Amino acid sequence: MAPASKTRDRIVQASLELFNLHGERSVTTNHIAAHIGISPGNLYYHFRNKQAIIAELFTAYEADVGAILQRPADRALTVEDKTAYLEALLAAMWRYRFLHRDLEHQLESDPELAARYRAFARRTLGSAQAIYRGFVEAGILRMSADQIEAIALNSWIIMTSWIRFLGTVRGGHAGLSEEQLRRGVYQVLALEGGYLAEEARGAVEALYRQLHVPLEKVLAS
Amino acid sequence: MAPASKTRDRIVQASLELFNLHGERSVTTNHIAAHIGISPGNLYYHFRNKQAIIAELFTAYEADVGAILQRPADRALTVEDKTAYLEALLAAMWRYRFLHRDLEHQLESDPELAARYRAFARRTLGSAQAIYRGFVEAGILRMSADQIEAIALNSWIIMTSWIRFLGTVRGGHAGLSEEQLRRGVYQVLALEGGYLAEEARGAVEALYRQLHVPLEKVLAS
Repeated sequence: MAPASKTRDRIVQASLELFNLHGERSVTTNHIAAHIGISPGNLYYHFRNKQAIIAELFTAYEADVGAILQRPADRALTVEDKTAYLEALLAAMWRYRFLHRDLEHQLESDPELAARYRAFARRTLGSAQAIYRGFVEAGILRMSADQIEAIALNSWIIMTSWIRFLGTVRGGHAGLSEEQLRRGVYQVLALEGGYLAEEARGAVEALYRQLHVPLEKVLAS
Repeated sequence: MAPASKTRDRIVQASLELFNLHGERSVTTNHIAAHIGISPGNLYYHFRNKQAIIAELFTAYEADVGAILQRPADRALTVEDKTAYLEALLAAMWRYRFLHRDLEHQLESDPELAARYRAFARRTLGSAQAIYRGFVEAGILRMSADQIEAIALNSWIIMTSWIRFLGTVRGGHAGLSEEQLRRGVYQVLALEGGYLAEEARGAVEALYRQLHVPLEKVLAS
């Protein structure tokens, strides 16, 4: 790897870290440059402004989520796939948590990013519906097309809001526990609790017991 | 009403309007004073800083939500109560929409508000569970205690996130339609779609048809 692109990577990684830690609005390109010990001019050589860094992080986030939301081409979905999807998605939400924290502000400041986000939201809602349809076809869920549309949207909102919700009820993200994240997986899975096919009920309910975290632990700071 | 308290009210109303319009972070006490044609000194006579105005608006929001989330003392809940609750709650979310837009930042800047918000969230989740229990007792829903706990939390997250979600997929809040808000009521109601008691299914499904708004209209800017 050429030194120039190494510096580029370091800028992106340091930005992600600082945005997640302090919120994107509180971090300037000068902070980022200082954090990795380069000059502001060197940073501007790679990125013309902070928005360009955010756009690059959004591309990475988009690629992560897109890669997760695939249906296996060669087999039916299984109950185990549920947790795999949800844990991977929540990990992506955690990794890019600054994005959903003050998303409206970021989209208002950057019309191009706003258009990309809209396309991404449409695509993601489409993929989520396809996956729920897969669980219906596999005989795990029993849902109508309308119910699938509604649950896909609700699961997207819960997923993208869970970390922020935790931040508001327990005073910030510092010291968020694995259990508190696990309850987010449980909450998304709970959306389908009323739609379990009789044959799958035992397996999914075992999953609920395994993932359940008492609310008291979620609300504890 | 004495003129002094009239000014106080005008400050609170103007702040709410400006915070909702531009986001709380972009609005200073000088903007607020200028907006209603008073001097900054006059504003400071009533509120020592912007956080004190936010705290007062939070008190009003808290009172609104608390008043909505009551169970009638003298009768069982009905299917009609569902939309009444949800429409009133969504109207409160709309009225104080600045609060949930960048809540984490506001709570980080004000530990006292953060403690109040935590207590409010606990209380609200308790009231929401009591209302869902009421629908179970009225023979409208069939749910276990764990399912009630999970749905109360999910409905709170969807409710407090709906307006922000719309803002991200359609480029801001300006020109949000009544239909787009109505879909939020539908989404919260959809959470219980898998738990309808046979006797109530017809009435609730009629409600779904009445509230349904095509996703295309939600995602349209």
